Amino acid sequence: MTFAQRLDRIRGLTEARLGSLVGAKTERREGHDRPPQRLLDAVGHATLGGGKRFRPFLVVESAALFGLPEREALDTAAAIECVHCYSLAHDDLPAMDNDAVRRGLPTVWKAFDEWTAILAGDALLTVAFETLSKPEVHPRPEVRLELISGLARAAGMAGMVGGQALDLEAERLPRTAPTTLEEILHLQSLKTGALIRFACEAGAILGQAEPEARAALHRYGKELGLAFQIADDLLDAEGDAATVGKAVSKDAAAGKATLVSLMGRDAARTELKRVEQAAVDALRLFGARAATLIEAAHFVASRNR
Amino acid sequence: MTFAQRLDRIRGLTEARLGSLVGAKTERREGHDRPPQRLLDAVGHATLGGGKRFRPFLVVESAALFGLPEREALDTAAAIECVHCYSLAHDDLPAMDNDAVRRGLPTVWKAFDEWTAILAGDALLTVAFETLSKPEVHPRPEVRLELISGLARAAGMAGMVGGQALDLEAERLPRTAPTTLEEILHLQSLKTGALIRFACEAGAILGQAEPEARAALHRYGKELGLAFQIADDLLDAEGDAATVGKAVSKDAAAGKATLVSLMGRDAARTELKRVEQAAVDALRLFGARAATLIEAAHFVASRNR
Repeated sequence: MTFAQRLDRIRGLTEARLGSLVGAKTERREGHDRPPQRLLDAVGHATLGGGKRFRPFLVVESAALFGLPEREALDTAAAIECVHCYSLAHDDLPAMDNDAVRRGLPTVWKAFDEWTAILAGDALLTVAFETLSKPEVHPRPEVRLELISGLARAAGMAGMVGGQALDLEAERLPRTAPTTLEEILHLQSLKTGALIRFACEAGAILGQAEPEARAALHRYGKELGLAFQIADDLLDAEGDAATVGKAVSKDAAAGKATLVSLMGRDAARTELKRVEQAAVDALRLFGARAATLIEAAHFVASRNR
Repeated sequence: MTFAQRLDRIRGLTEARLGSLVGAKTERREGHDRPPQRLLDAVGHATLGGGKRFRPFLVVESAALFGLPEREALDTAAAIECVHCYSLAHDDLPAMDNDAVRRGLPTVWKAFDEWTAILAGDALLTVAFETLSKPEVHPRPEVRLELISGLARAAGMAGMVGGQALDLEAERLPRTAPTTLEEILHLQSLKTGALIRFACEAGAILGQAEPEARAALHRYGKELGLAFQIADDLLDAEGDAATVGKAVSKDAAAGKATLVSLMGRDAARTELKRVEQAAVDALRLFGARAATLIEAAHFVASRNR
């Protein structure tokens, strides 16, 4: 199976699992346990029918290093994707990034309205933790608790939400805007890095990996997240909206410092190569078993949408 | 100790626990794990220095039925209060209930801005689950997972968030507005009832109660939540803003059907008495040990703010 086929396979499996988690099969829910239909529709719009499902892919592939079959990693993968989708639903709001298009479709607030998008995001974040509490995720309660704790830290104030707060502060309260490379790297390490790192570590948690293997996946996730961000900044600076599937040149228009604006495009491309190699090097411990994750690093560094 | 002293004591203990959970002692956080200061300030504003802490009180007192000391119920109590506070921060947003004042103070979006209030709410919901994952909550992993699962269900699409969605639909999309008493009762059972019920059940989960005792606390929580809502509707219809500490007559102004508008004030007061008694009856199993929870039912039914 090629890398693209593998990515596509896990995308399909994740899509199906998300469908059952967020109630696509609503005809089965009846009586007082039935969520309001319009909210379910908005949650479905926020979650289903789009996205590369790259974080779920990282969970499934890192778990595979420890011999876990796909099906035993999919609930965890879907829970992390729920957190990613909730963050998009909230970040797209007019009061936040004010984006009307995402993956070529109207964003949740545009397709419904602002209050529905806020509540759909809240619901999805809650679904993520509910999912991880279930025995299907892993037979050992300690493993489920470690996943919950890790996801909460990756998604919270010292993780994704903290990074989004720093990013909006940079845009709205320019006095506090990060201006050095170190500050930008910190912001990105929280905003997009934390969840990608955790997706890689989640496989090690599910696989009850030794500390050395877990640390290796943490390092891989860290470099991969950075590569992802540099590639994203390059796309924003160079891509066109039709290919990328969302608005571009937003950073420059907002006058925001990015890795690319601080380093220049050429240096950013060189740094991207270095980080890509560092991600690959972090996997040395796993030998040939890590072939798919190595391809993932190349994929991230060369993506064009 | 009188009921008022008891309530005040648990309020103080909860306040202190919340302070350490949401990083009031920020000088201790350093380096890359330090959340952005402005976000921490907003989370603190959303969480600290106000509120009766009634849900934490219910957790601590229901846990006490099973011999648990206060300190062993406080983390769970604080986690549930985090969810309550997040819901207020989001519900007050201009796109939602558009409230500028809460507990006599500016709401989070008014004191900061909309995006900060959205992110502070997101952060608080995440903190709640992170807190419940920690060993300090309860030594048995299974108990912590049951708390996480129960809180997620109470807070989610078929609970609090679902209720808020129904309530806003009633206001904004009048075709779908609930018009019968049964529909209103369902809406309120989700919007405010689910978290109050869970606060009562959480004590039984922490106390590893037998099914009969747990079911009794569920029934108590259900009646208490309903009493809480009828009293709230009566306050909205009859109170004045200075005493209540927030805007009143909002339901009538919005043309929304409430328990009071459907039943009339006199019948609502009679129903409140009936529900108050049903809450007390649910506690029969516990005998004299339930004295404080019985007083809590009277407190809820007679509150004036």
